[in-house]
Amino acid sequence: MSSKQTIIFKNQPKIISSYSIAGPKESYSVFAPYFDLVLKDDLWDCDSYEMAERKMLEHVIFNAIERAKMNPKDIDALICGDLLNQIISSSFAARKFDVTYIGLFGACSTMAESLAVGACLVDAGYFDKVACATASHFSSVERQFRMPLELGSQRPPTAQWTVTGGGCSILSNVGKGPKITTATFGKVVDYNITDANNMGAAMAPSAMNTMIQHFINTNTTPDDYDLIVTGDLGKLGAEILIDLMEYNGYKLGQNYMDCGHCIYTNEQNTFMGGSGCGCSALMLNSYIIQKIREKQYNKVLFIATGALLSTTSSFQGESIPGIAHAIVIEN
Amino acid sequence: MSSKQTIIFKNQPKIISSYSIAGPKESYSVFAPYFDLVLKDDLWDCDSYEMAERKMLEHVIFNAIERAKMNPKDIDALICGDLLNQIISSSFAARKFDVTYIGLFGACSTMAESLAVGACLVDAGYFDKVACATASHFSSVERQFRMPLELGSQRPPTAQWTVTGGGCSILSNVGKGPKITTATFGKVVDYNITDANNMGAAMAPSAMNTMIQHFINTNTTPDDYDLIVTGDLGKLGAEILIDLMEYNGYKLGQNYMDCGHCIYTNEQNTFMGGSGCGCSALMLNSYIIQKIREKQYNKVLFIATGALLSTTSSFQGESIPGIAHAIVIEN
Repeated sequence: MSSKQTIIFKNQPKIISSYSIAGPKESYSVFAPYFDLVLKDDLWDCDSYEMAERKMLEHVIFNAIERAKMNPKDIDALICGDLLNQIISSSFAARKFDVTYIGLFGACSTMAESLAVGACLVDAGYFDKVACATASHFSSVERQFRMPLELGSQRPPTAQWTVTGGGCSILSNVGKGPKITTATFGKVVDYNITDANNMGAAMAPSAMNTMIQHFINTNTTPDDYDLIVTGDLGKLGAEILIDLMEYNGYKLGQNYMDCGHCIYTNEQNTFMGGSGCGCSALMLNSYIIQKIREKQYNKVLFIATGALLSTTSSFQGESIPGIAHAIVIEN
Repeated sequence: MSSKQTIIFKNQPKIISSYSIAGPKESYSVFAPYFDLVLKDDLWDCDSYEMAERKMLEHVIFNAIERAKMNPKDIDALICGDLLNQIISSSFAARKFDVTYIGLFGACSTMAESLAVGACLVDAGYFDKVACATASHFSSVERQFRMPLELGSQRPPTAQWTVTGGGCSILSNVGKGPKITTATFGKVVDYNITDANNMGAAMAPSAMNTMIQHFINTNTTPDDYDLIVTGDLGKLGAEILIDLMEYNGYKLGQNYMDCGHCIYTNEQNTFMGGSGCGCSALMLNSYIIQKIREKQYNKVLFIATGALLSTTSSFQGESIPGIAHAIVIEN
C-alpha cells in the first residue's frame, strides 16, 4: 500500500472557528449542550426539507465565519458537499457567498474529506482561509434514498437514523485553534454488502483500511491518540470495526468512539444510532472541538466514513462500496 | 473580488498522459480522428447505461495510466466526478483501482475542477502522480435528469445533447507534457435562469465571471491565449458569453471555441450542440492536448462550466446556478 495516502502538514492549518447546528430529535442527545443551535422545528420556516437542509448549511457557514470575526468576503474558498443528488444543498448554499467554491462528494465522509482537502490548500499557501462544511437532514435524505416519509415504513434492526445537523470549520495558517497535523485520504473498499439498511457493515471495512494505513504511515498505534472517533458506523458498524482491527493486530480501547453510535439516547429507538454526513460534522464542530480546546483531548484521530451507493446502484444489484478519510487534530 | 481565486503554480504540473473515449454519435464529429476509442455500441456489453458509463470511466483511467507507462499502483490519487446521483460512476470506477480517491462534484465543470484540484495537490508535492477524470453518457444522464428514453420526448430548440464520452489526464511534476501553469476556481453564479432545457444561458454568466477574474488576476487579455475553450455552453451559451464579455470590455475572437458547440455536425440535429461533463473531458484529452503537443497551440485557457441543478431543485421552483473552473495549459 502506498504511503502516499498520508500527508503530514508542515504549516499545520488551524481550526480557528467552528459552528454546529442540530435538529429537534438531536436536542435529546447527551451532547446537546455543546451544539451551537438546536432547531425546534426541522422545517425551519422553509417550504421543503431540502430547503431547510440548505438553510442549515448556510447558517453554519455564516456563523463559523462570524465567530472567527470575519466577513464572508474574507474567506478564500468554501469546500463543501452533502448527500442530496448533485449536492444541491452545498451548491445552493454557496450561491449565498461570493466566494470560490469547490464541491465535493464523499457521502458521509464529507466532513473529513473537506477538512483534508481544505488543509492541503491552506497548508500549501494557495488559500489563506477556507470554510469546510456539510449538513444532512433526516427528512430530505430519507425520502431521497429510501421511502416516502408518509409511508411510515418499518425500519429493520440494523437501520440508522439520519442526523438532522451540520457543521462548519474555518481553517487558516494564522490565528489560534486546534491544528490539523496529518491527513490520510481513503481508498474505495467493498466487502460486498448489499443491504442498504446496514450501512455500518458496508462502511466498517473502509474505516479499517484507512485507519491501518494511517497507523503504518505515521508510525503510530491507537494508544497514541486521546480520542479515535469514527463518523457514523453506528453500534453494529463500530463493533465490526473493533473486530476487524483486532483481527489485524490493533486494539481499539476506551479511547474509541463513534459519533453515530453515541449521538442518540437508547430511549430514542434509532436502533444502530445516527448516520448522515451531518452526524460527524455536528459532533466534530461541537463536542469534539470544544474538548480539544479545553485540552481534555490533545491528539484526536477523526475518521469519517461514506457509503458510496445511490438508489440506482442498489436497484441495479450493486453492492455498497465505502470510503473513509482521516485527519489528525492536535493541540 | 478576491484575487485568491487564482493559483499560479510554481512547479507547473505536467499532463504526462491523456486518454479519451467517445460514443457512436460522437464518431461523426470532425474531431473523431483524435479520439482514442470510439464505441460502436453505447451499451458496450453492459447491462445498463449506468454500467456502460462507469466502464468508460474505468477504461480512460486505466489507459491513461498505461499510456504513461505506469501501473495503477503507481498513481497516488484518483480525482474524479460525474453527473449521476452520488457520482456512482466515479466511486464504482475507483473501486477497481487500489488508490486514494477524492470524489468531486462540479457537474459539467468536473474536468476543470479535477485538474485544478489535482494540479494543487501535485504542485504542492503532496502527491507525485494523480489521475483526473470524468465521463458522461447520453442515456444515463437523459433518463436521470429529464425523461424516460422510451418516451421519445420532443426537444426544445435550446436543448443540448449529452455527450457519451470521457477522458483522463495524468498529472506529475516530473516527466514530459503540457504544463498546467495557473488555475482559477469559480464562484457560484445565478442569473435566475429556470429552463432546464437551456443550460447554455444558465452557465454562460459563470463562465464570464471566472474568465474576467482570471484575466484580472493574471494580468492577461483574451489575445494572450492561442485558444480559449469553454466546456459545453453550446451555440446559444457561447453567443451569450461572447456578448457578456464584450459588454465587460473583453473581445473573444477567432481564438475562442466551445466544445459543446463544435463537437457535433450540423446534420446531427442536436440543436445547440453537446453537453455533459464528458463533452469537455473528451475534447480536452484528445484534440486540444494533441494540438498543444504539436505546438499548434502554446497557451490555452480551458474553462469548463457546470449547471448546479437537480431534478429536485427544479421541481421546487429553483433557478439554475452555474459554476466555471479554469486552468491554463502551456507548452
